[in-house]
Amino acid sequence: MPNHKTVQDYIRTIVDFPHEGIMFRDVTTLFADPRGLRLAVDQMLHPYAGTRIDKVIGLEARGFILGGAIAHQLSVGFVPIRKKSKLPGATISEAYTLEYGEAVVEIHDDAIQAGEKILLVDDLLATGGTAEAGIKLVERLGGEIVGCAFVIDLPDLGGRARLEKMGMDVHALCAFEGE
Amino acid sequence: MPNHKTVQDYIRTIVDFPHEGIMFRDVTTLFADPRGLRLAVDQMLHPYAGTRIDKVIGLEARGFILGGAIAHQLSVGFVPIRKKSKLPGATISEAYTLEYGEAVVEIHDDAIQAGEKILLVDDLLATGGTAEAGIKLVERLGGEIVGCAFVIDLPDLGGRARLEKMGMDVHALCAFEGE
Repeated sequence: MPNHKTVQDYIRTIVDFPHEGIMFRDVTTLFADPRGLRLAVDQMLHPYAGTRIDKVIGLEARGFILGGAIAHQLSVGFVPIRKKSKLPGATISEAYTLEYGEAVVEIHDDAIQAGEKILLVDDLLATGGTAEAGIKLVERLGGEIVGCAFVIDLPDLGGRARLEKMGMDVHALCAFEGE
Repeated sequence: MPNHKTVQDYIRTIVDFPHEGIMFRDVTTLFADPRGLRLAVDQMLHPYAGTRIDKVIGLEARGFILGGAIAHQLSVGFVPIRKKSKLPGATISEAYTLEYGEAVVEIHDDAIQAGEKILLVDDLLATGGTAEAGIKLVERLGGEIVGCAFVIDLPDLGGRARLEKMGMDVHALCAFEGE
């Protein structure tokens, strides 16, 4: 019998994680399903068919799962953006604001060459703080972001508007409203 | 001109990371190269051609990059093994010994069904402590590990011997001796 489940159908909601009042959208049930993972990776790439992409950038840690798959599918390189002090070589860094306090993400300073076309991927677009920091890192190295691809958009948290204001092309496979 | 570089040729060595005396084998230069990433993913799968694999398990965080790519290539699901308190659903956990102290890894308790055939992947096999903990988690859920695939083996640190003593089939794409 044909299976018509959508990407959204494979996503599980965990109530009160990581703290009370949060409805956590859990993509591990999507990734653990053979059809779910394939749907997600293939659909994230559909908007970019025919677009030149030189490298895929993934945000730690769930963005690594998608980013590795998408880079392999495209036969291009993968570059991680990691939390502070995780990358062994020379890095540049960007700070961004969290609900409480600040975090820092880093990229190797030789990971992107000027003029390279970059696809940025992550599982979730919420406030867009991490993605904005990642975009700034890529642009400081001379890379050009051709798109930002997510599985889930939480539009009420403003991330999409924030990235579009930066001139970004933003795609997500599904949205949860009223978060 | 044909490119005959091996996987090992793409790996960069960073001296004294994360602390003095360590020669850190950096796979980010392998993953960032389009041919390097493809070589690594394809070669990690060659020993398992024709073998039934139901799910790929990746160890946080660099194992996610490879695991996502390998699961997508096989059209099977991907399951992450994460550090403590990162997974949102109900988990089981295993502790393992580090150079100083102890760490804990977790897996969702519904991520593997009894009898599923599992390929475990990570970038580096050193002491084998994390891999051993991951294998135990999979086996506690009734999964059967059909292989453990790594990019790099540091045989002097004993991980290969440790996993083979558990009855594991261990493959690595290259080895650095005298670590």
